[in-house]
Amino acid sequence: MTGLTFTLSHVDGRARRGRLDTAHGAIETPAFMPVGTAATVKAMTPDAVRATGAQCILGNTYHLMLRPGAERIRRLGGLHEFMNWPGPILTDSGGFQVWSLKDLRKLTEDGVTFKSHIDGARHELTPESCMDIQNALDADITMVLDECTPFGVDGDTARASMELSMRWARRSRKAFEDRPGYGLFGIVQGGVYPELRRESAERLQAVGFDGYAVGGLAVGEGPELMLATLDTTTTHLPDDRPRYLMGVGKPEDLVNAVELGIDMFDCVLPTRSGRTDQAFTRRGQLNMRNARHKDDPRPLDPDCACPACADYSRAYLHHLVQAREILGLMLLTWHNLHYYQELMAGMRQAIEAGSFADFKRDFLAQQAAGDIEPLNGTDA
Amino acid sequence: MTGLTFTLSHVDGRARRGRLDTAHGAIETPAFMPVGTAATVKAMTPDAVRATGAQCILGNTYHLMLRPGAERIRRLGGLHEFMNWPGPILTDSGGFQVWSLKDLRKLTEDGVTFKSHIDGARHELTPESCMDIQNALDADITMVLDECTPFGVDGDTARASMELSMRWARRSRKAFEDRPGYGLFGIVQGGVYPELRRESAERLQAVGFDGYAVGGLAVGEGPELMLATLDTTTTHLPDDRPRYLMGVGKPEDLVNAVELGIDMFDCVLPTRSGRTDQAFTRRGQLNMRNARHKDDPRPLDPDCACPACADYSRAYLHHLVQAREILGLMLLTWHNLHYYQELMAGMRQAIEAGSFADFKRDFLAQQAAGDIEPLNGTDA
Repeated sequence: MTGLTFTLSHVDGRARRGRLDTAHGAIETPAFMPVGTAATVKAMTPDAVRATGAQCILGNTYHLMLRPGAERIRRLGGLHEFMNWPGPILTDSGGFQVWSLKDLRKLTEDGVTFKSHIDGARHELTPESCMDIQNALDADITMVLDECTPFGVDGDTARASMELSMRWARRSRKAFEDRPGYGLFGIVQGGVYPELRRESAERLQAVGFDGYAVGGLAVGEGPELMLATLDTTTTHLPDDRPRYLMGVGKPEDLVNAVELGIDMFDCVLPTRSGRTDQAFTRRGQLNMRNARHKDDPRPLDPDCACPACADYSRAYLHHLVQAREILGLMLLTWHNLHYYQELMAGMRQAIEAGSFADFKRDFLAQQAAGDIEPLNGTDA
Repeated sequence: MTGLTFTLSHVDGRARRGRLDTAHGAIETPAFMPVGTAATVKAMTPDAVRATGAQCILGNTYHLMLRPGAERIRRLGGLHEFMNWPGPILTDSGGFQVWSLKDLRKLTEDGVTFKSHIDGARHELTPESCMDIQNALDADITMVLDECTPFGVDGDTARASMELSMRWARRSRKAFEDRPGYGLFGIVQGGVYPELRRESAERLQAVGFDGYAVGGLAVGEGPELMLATLDTTTTHLPDDRPRYLMGVGKPEDLVNAVELGIDMFDCVLPTRSGRTDQAFTRRGQLNMRNARHKDDPRPLDPDCACPACADYSRAYLHHLVQAREILGLMLLTWHNLHYYQELMAGMRQAIEAGSFADFKRDFLAQQAAGDIEPLNGTDA
């Protein structure tokens, strides 16, 4: 086998059920990948991440190249060994983080130079060095270096940005070292312009990638324009390769994007929300700082089997976040990742059963119904 | 059974091997109790605490009475239920924390009034209310309210302070509600004055307690004066009741105190050190921020079976602490608690075998030998 094997087993409308085989194991799709920025999914042990049902995690090339350094990780046996995660790992290209550095970066045809946010040291990323770095990290899935087109730019600017990304994608492909079980994904850019998205998708296919990502969304365009752009983009992507929507998102975004044929996701939302006292549940989002939880002996989500829900009350979780205790971050992060994985598992099951439309209707109804009723006298 | 059953099985010199049975299970002694200040052992799940070998944890009455409140914890089923720790819990009296508030407290014969460090609200602790609060928390082991005599005071001041503590101990005993499996410990005070310590120990025995604690040590007197004071104090304590050295200490302190007949310990050192990048090992203390670890693929302690040592390199732990990642605190806390519990288990085994003197000699030799040799070229 060269590259990554992707097997589609069920299609329900445009929603897809598949499996992506990598050098470090299989990823059942649609899949959500927790973000392990600096070689750790924040506030979680790898065992706990695995216990939530996650199969693949994401590492951030930008952070890892700066600290502890890609060559150091290579010497220490690669990212899987370094961080004790034996399963598949996808690394991003670092382009998105560099793009958000704004005044600290300089873009040329060759690549991008930037100053480290840690020590101010100057670094360079080119399509070629980006492949070397991800190779040193031993990523199962490598992403091409691209420029994330900002939202709000005119068509000419968006085209120029997309065309640069396509030239970089070709250079990335050329520099990528093919190995069985390892693959390279191209990234569709083009802002919110359907014609540019079509052209980008076609140019990437002319090069040929193991998978196709949709980049440059969830950067300020809002959910409607995001879904409209996704709607046209996925129609121009090949059926036999996985599709990955980068950096998205909320639970409803995942459901809507799966409906449009997306197979893979990553987002910091469940982990970051866990560290800011927010919990995602079947019945919507809860702020655990809210005083109405302070005497509530019931679990966060009565329908959830994660340790935060199985072993603790809302009152206890509220106490932990009020006292800024680390266990509060740990339990809410665990719960949120568990919820995201349960949501993905539910979608996979629904697609297998040909009932994705029902699943989506039930999902939306339950979210709209809101939280369980407050207990008498506890709605402080 | 009324109160707590304590069974001594082995004595080796003055070192003691025993078992204390409580309403929530047994504590094999000598025992180290991790500190769970605000209803959580910081950065640890209860399962992880149990996995280190800990049998009993300590809760801080001062913190819990302020937040979330003792009556709230009672309504939520008691501290065991609230924090998901089914094993034995000892709560301190709150006196030590109030004592360290300095300008925010006022002491009278009746008790002590103080301002909350959280919201400035005024609170009162008397020997009687202190029993009520610990009863509400459902502590297996309750501590009497006492005044911690500061180090450096003259003999008259130390006597006056000790005598107040003895009057409070009598009132505490009177207010304590006897129940099977629950017990009350008196606290010996008297500063570094052997005669006061003797008198305090005898006056407590005249009242009668389920166990006897040694308070007011490790407050600045230094290790030699601490051990000298402990040496005389334990000779005045009854053999058939457990002895608890409060708030101590470093690994060598535990070994020295067990040698003098102490059965129980608590200290924030292993957990606090874990959150400040310090690791305790058989070969001494390591600062994981040190750059010499950054390329070292070896475990923190090759002889340790805890997850931090079994699954990760020194290089990875160094990376986590440099990046201020929560997993770094989690793993170092776990390791330190595991190390403390292994140390206690080693002492228990040595006392059973009648070889405590050998154990102590080996312990000191290994600590003095220092860390494993640096790898070539990694001693940056």
